[in-house]
Amino acid sequence: MDDQRPDLRPFLQPQSIAILGASKNISKPNGIPLFMLLDIGFPGKIYPVNPSYREIAGYPCYSDIESIPGEVDLAVIGVSAAQTLNVLEACARKGVKGAVVFTSGFAEAGEQGTDLQEAIHRLSQESGMRIVGPNCVGIVHRQNKVWASFAPPLLYRKAYFDKNFHFISQSGFFGILTYQMAAREGLFFDQFYSVGNEADLGLPHFLDYLAKETHATSDLIACYIEGIKEKDGELFKSAAEEALLRDKLLAVIKVGQTEAGTRAASSHTAALTGADRVYDAFFRQKRMIRAPGIEQLVPLLKISGTGRYPAGKRTAVISDSGGGAVMLADKCQLYGLDLVRFQEETERQLKEILPFFAATGNPVDLTAQVMTEPDLLFKSISIVEKDPHVDNLVLNFGIGPANAPAVIQSLKELYLNSDKPMIAVCWPWVEEEAARPYIDEIRAFGLPVFHELDDCIWALGTLAHRMEKARAYEPPRRIAPGKEQREARLHLEAYWRSLQSCRQLEPRPASGQSGKINMSEYIMKQILSCYGIPVTKEVLVHSEAGAARAADTLGGNLAVKAVSREIAHKTEIGGVLLHRKGSEEVKQAYAELVKTIGALDNPPPLEGILVQEMLPPATELIIGVKRDPVFGPVVLCGLGGIFVEILEDIALRVAPLSRQDAEEMLQELKSFKVFQGARGQEPADLEAVVEILLRVSRLALEMDNLVELDMNPLMVYPRGQGAVVVDAWGRWLGSNNEEA
Amino acid sequence: MDDQRPDLRPFLQPQSIAILGASKNISKPNGIPLFMLLDIGFPGKIYPVNPSYREIAGYPCYSDIESIPGEVDLAVIGVSAAQTLNVLEACARKGVKGAVVFTSGFAEAGEQGTDLQEAIHRLSQESGMRIVGPNCVGIVHRQNKVWASFAPPLLYRKAYFDKNFHFISQSGFFGILTYQMAAREGLFFDQFYSVGNEADLGLPHFLDYLAKETHATSDLIACYIEGIKEKDGELFKSAAEEALLRDKLLAVIKVGQTEAGTRAASSHTAALTGADRVYDAFFRQKRMIRAPGIEQLVPLLKISGTGRYPAGKRTAVISDSGGGAVMLADKCQLYGLDLVRFQEETERQLKEILPFFAATGNPVDLTAQVMTEPDLLFKSISIVEKDPHVDNLVLNFGIGPANAPAVIQSLKELYLNSDKPMIAVCWPWVEEEAARPYIDEIRAFGLPVFHELDDCIWALGTLAHRMEKARAYEPPRRIAPGKEQREARLHLEAYWRSLQSCRQLEPRPASGQSGKINMSEYIMKQILSCYGIPVTKEVLVHSEAGAARAADTLGGNLAVKAVSREIAHKTEIGGVLLHRKGSEEVKQAYAELVKTIGALDNPPPLEGILVQEMLPPATELIIGVKRDPVFGPVVLCGLGGIFVEILEDIALRVAPLSRQDAEEMLQELKSFKVFQGARGQEPADLEAVVEILLRVSRLALEMDNLVELDMNPLMVYPRGQGAVVVDAWGRWLGSNNEEA
Repeated sequence: MDDQRPDLRPFLQPQSIAILGASKNISKPNGIPLFMLLDIGFPGKIYPVNPSYREIAGYPCYSDIESIPGEVDLAVIGVSAAQTLNVLEACARKGVKGAVVFTSGFAEAGEQGTDLQEAIHRLSQESGMRIVGPNCVGIVHRQNKVWASFAPPLLYRKAYFDKNFHFISQSGFFGILTYQMAAREGLFFDQFYSVGNEADLGLPHFLDYLAKETHATSDLIACYIEGIKEKDGELFKSAAEEALLRDKLLAVIKVGQTEAGTRAASSHTAALTGADRVYDAFFRQKRMIRAPGIEQLVPLLKISGTGRYPAGKRTAVISDSGGGAVMLADKCQLYGLDLVRFQEETERQLKEILPFFAATGNPVDLTAQVMTEPDLLFKSISIVEKDPHVDNLVLNFGIGPANAPAVIQSLKELYLNSDKPMIAVCWPWVEEEAARPYIDEIRAFGLPVFHELDDCIWALGTLAHRMEKARAYEPPRRIAPGKEQREARLHLEAYWRSLQSCRQLEPRPASGQSGKINMSEYIMKQILSCYGIPVTKEVLVHSEAGAARAADTLGGNLAVKAVSREIAHKTEIGGVLLHRKGSEEVKQAYAELVKTIGALDNPPPLEGILVQEMLPPATELIIGVKRDPVFGPVVLCGLGGIFVEILEDIALRVAPLSRQDAEEMLQELKSFKVFQGARGQEPADLEAVVEILLRVSRLALEMDNLVELDMNPLMVYPRGQGAVVVDAWGRWLGSNNEEA
Repeated sequence: MDDQRPDLRPFLQPQSIAILGASKNISKPNGIPLFMLLDIGFPGKIYPVNPSYREIAGYPCYSDIESIPGEVDLAVIGVSAAQTLNVLEACARKGVKGAVVFTSGFAEAGEQGTDLQEAIHRLSQESGMRIVGPNCVGIVHRQNKVWASFAPPLLYRKAYFDKNFHFISQSGFFGILTYQMAAREGLFFDQFYSVGNEADLGLPHFLDYLAKETHATSDLIACYIEGIKEKDGELFKSAAEEALLRDKLLAVIKVGQTEAGTRAASSHTAALTGADRVYDAFFRQKRMIRAPGIEQLVPLLKISGTGRYPAGKRTAVISDSGGGAVMLADKCQLYGLDLVRFQEETERQLKEILPFFAATGNPVDLTAQVMTEPDLLFKSISIVEKDPHVDNLVLNFGIGPANAPAVIQSLKELYLNSDKPMIAVCWPWVEEEAARPYIDEIRAFGLPVFHELDDCIWALGTLAHRMEKARAYEPPRRIAPGKEQREARLHLEAYWRSLQSCRQLEPRPASGQSGKINMSEYIMKQILSCYGIPVTKEVLVHSEAGAARAADTLGGNLAVKAVSREIAHKTEIGGVLLHRKGSEEVKQAYAELVKTIGALDNPPPLEGILVQEMLPPATELIIGVKRDPVFGPVVLCGLGGIFVEILEDIALRVAPLSRQDAEEMLQELKSFKVFQGARGQEPADLEAVVEILLRVSRLALEMDNLVELDMNPLMVYPRGQGAVVVDAWGRWLGSNNEEA
């Protein structure tokens, strides 16, 4: 068991649980666990610990953990922040294997709290005792009857769904709210993890465990995420991939979508947790469903909880009202479902049974005629359900004493004899309380029922889309580093040496970027070349004679550029001369550039002068890499010019990229039409761009001291004619970690 | 009373109501009205009409309308579609003033039904008897105790809000659903109009009435719209403006947002109802709130129903949990609310009362400490409420037996002593039924309570935005047509004459555009000039000598273009020659163009050759006009090139435009940054563009046979340097209606 894949058994199936700071008051956080363990029937030993009591609820109460006679697998800690470290140290001495710390007042409370949390982390590392929290609501494993939490019990008791779900939450409140809202609908959770400040174990540890759990009673995992900690990024990435490959459905709420939310989240969790856009890209990449909020997550869990996953997006709407039909048609298309055209036979049969003024297309409008003929609803559904063009059914109807018995009985038969996903948008004709028995009867046979027609359609549409994407998923191929890496490293080393012989002995970090240094176009393009990424033909020269020779070798129209890793914007300081032809012009350009650079205040060290072919115009792309603190290298691309600058039309993917990732990121761009040949242009060579994205992904992973890379522009020519990097720029951690 | 502003008194305050086809079965559509009139206590005369009965509910039942002894103000008709026309004719003979027709099977049911509906319309026009329906649920006026509807009664009886609302619905189902959902929250409707197929009276007639009603008990009007009929477009426009000017809040659900929804809506209402984008623009223009659905409309009505409209967007969030605080912060920013920074004093006071690990910024996180100290909630709200930087408060808290008495009492005091809008997002700690009394107590003092944290924030944010926009609203100035119109008409007439002398005797409509003809660049620009819209300097010539003279007059770099209203794309057929200098080159260009056009198959009639100044490059804008069947002339604009072609980045406004409209439509463009001087360019002359938009709006209204106008490009120069139309094109109804 390594640090990242710890033994979680003390948390999941402890033989004994000690409650430190146990209280007799069952409405207080440290009173609830004992009460709940008894209520749920925990089969192991329970040890309340509190010097103020002799016993609680008939259990002998110990003055401290070390006076407990037997072994303790799990300690639940609800003492004050000031006492927490002492208590944890005692636990470690006792040989406790796992601890859940409820207490608040650590990293979320400022500097002093952060120090205290650091101390807890160190204690965990030194002692091997794993810790959940602090500042958490704790964990619950219903199957194993573990309630190491001050979460309240489920308020609702009727289970209607085939599946349960697991929930991991970085907010106790949200976790509890979610499982209560789901339970109210008859959908329960199996395991619940509130991870709090994640001093030691975090959300990714439990996600990794659930993703791999083979005896899971559920393949639905939901998470509430404020931000993954830097230390847990890699584990989160692999756990998400693992869940996808094992056909587990992973749905997340990720807050911090806006600047205000990010600010609030970082004051809540006090961690460096990366950019929301990167999360969003990663979720898409790994077919995780991002729910905008709890209002959308619960419907999603309900529909998934039936175990009927959409086979496609083709959806039929059957409504007892025209207005409902129109609204549902709108929502279906809005959320990506296809309001498919029925088979002729379906329409014919509908026409046979429905009044002449009903609509028999899709959506089907039964009209107010159902007020006098309630079984029109059932008959229509029965016809549409058989249509092979229909993957999913959305039913919209009112219910009351007049139609309930007939409708419920027929719907039940129909639902149980079908395997298509269906949802019912159901409006009571009587007061809510009076309608509840009808709704409950419908739920009882498994059909998910809703009282709104927005979030449920979002959920169905999103699920259908996700299943389609998950079925087609192609994982990235893991390629062992090879000669590309070796060669690129040789270039890098040579570059460090050349820099040292240049002017300074040590490359100095760019101002304000301690430990990170910029690298010039020439060396960046050499490294790109090692990875097979096409760059302009060019020669770095150090003399007028060299410049002249380069001109002869390259021929044609040439650009002449000053090369220095300390020049950020070559053009602005006059460091680029274009359209030079022949050795004479290029020689002059060389001299001119040397003079220009030399005349600058505090002239930057020149690495040489680059003589470079000039390329014909093409579609200009920007491809880059940024290292995210959580996700590692992120590859980004966008169309040059206004698309990136004004519309921020950029697509991101976390490395490693698969070919599918690269294709999807291009398709995601608003400007994708430009590549496809909009405005009378020829379609661009997308295949070449995809290939470059894959190579950039590999480079970014293998050159692990690359912090940032910018290829701008990449000239993309018409299909079959390739793409070439014209300029590039990079930022690195100091050579071979010497400066890191 | 004209046709558009009819006397609605027979519907709103009838002295007598006849129910045609009355049934004893109170669960059938034609049984409900009598039952409800008795239930609600209608003070006038009630006449059931049905040959099958002698009496219903103690009321003598008449065999037909004409046997009723007294006058009948309003007839409610629930007979079959086949009988409807006969029955209506009898009503007209009887002198009935208004009729509500429930029956389905008219325009929504195909051709035969459409004919029948047409006949109903004619009957209404000929007899003067006004009609609501067919295919509707009818109308309700609670204050006047009129229930001419088969809508079910309100299911809920407790009213908690200061205000009521009126509801006009093009769907019976949606109308009922909305008022039931609102009633469940303690918010009632005053008047309810289900307008069905709108054979005679439509949604705009009732909107117009409500907009002007001065004794209204409510200034909240909600509508469900599938599409406004062509005939009612002008009335709808003026009613919306009227409502805005009289400070009435108008909130609409408009379906048909997607192609699937539009298709479903048109099969439901069978009417030509214009493009959704135009509705959307008009709603924005008249500060109407467009709710995406019923789930958002009801929260909006609840918040508005308190009578506390947001004074601004500055909002404070106070939450008893960190997760809730973060989520609400996200939602606030997402929906346009500002999570304002508190005054220092506010933070200081919060720090004083809250535990050290709580967050005292905005959002305020009280932490789980409220479990032991419930009054932290009230104390914090009380501090924040006093902060002058805060316009609105969003409260997020759990409620249960432990804190309910204290929380409710203190909240009530605080709410009633404040005039700031507040909303409570409230989570029960106990089962829903058990929590209802607490929720009801909170509602009872007027604080709107929600069990979700998405739609309610949408509603608050949207309302705050709407109020800000409504306060700043500047109505368009109505300008009487003047010399611009006279001069433009002279040009048009001269053009028709010139066309006749040209080659054909009658201008022939462009193919497939019966009655509509295209107009050439030259005449369009002459008309633009009449309205003071700057166009290129140019001369239309008919000879080589004329061309040479024009070249001398204009000087400089010139474009030479073939002018014919039958050439749609001049450039494609070689009809434009650029960069000609001096009389000789222009003369040659003239000859070349005449030859080129003459050599075409079926050569188009040439109106002349245009010699035109060439302008320096600038930001290129497209401005156009399209005549919408409902809204009349719609002005549109967008940035030329990819913005319009690939991103469809176009802003629309319905004429007449105010200066504010013109400014807002520019600001709405995604490409607005380009005008502001992105990418190192100078800011463009927006003032000149605004002026042109205003003039185009006026032109479009005054030249009422203009169907379509396209100015592309309009060259916009840096601030202070103006904008000039380079090319233009138009489509008109035949000259002076000769061809219309």
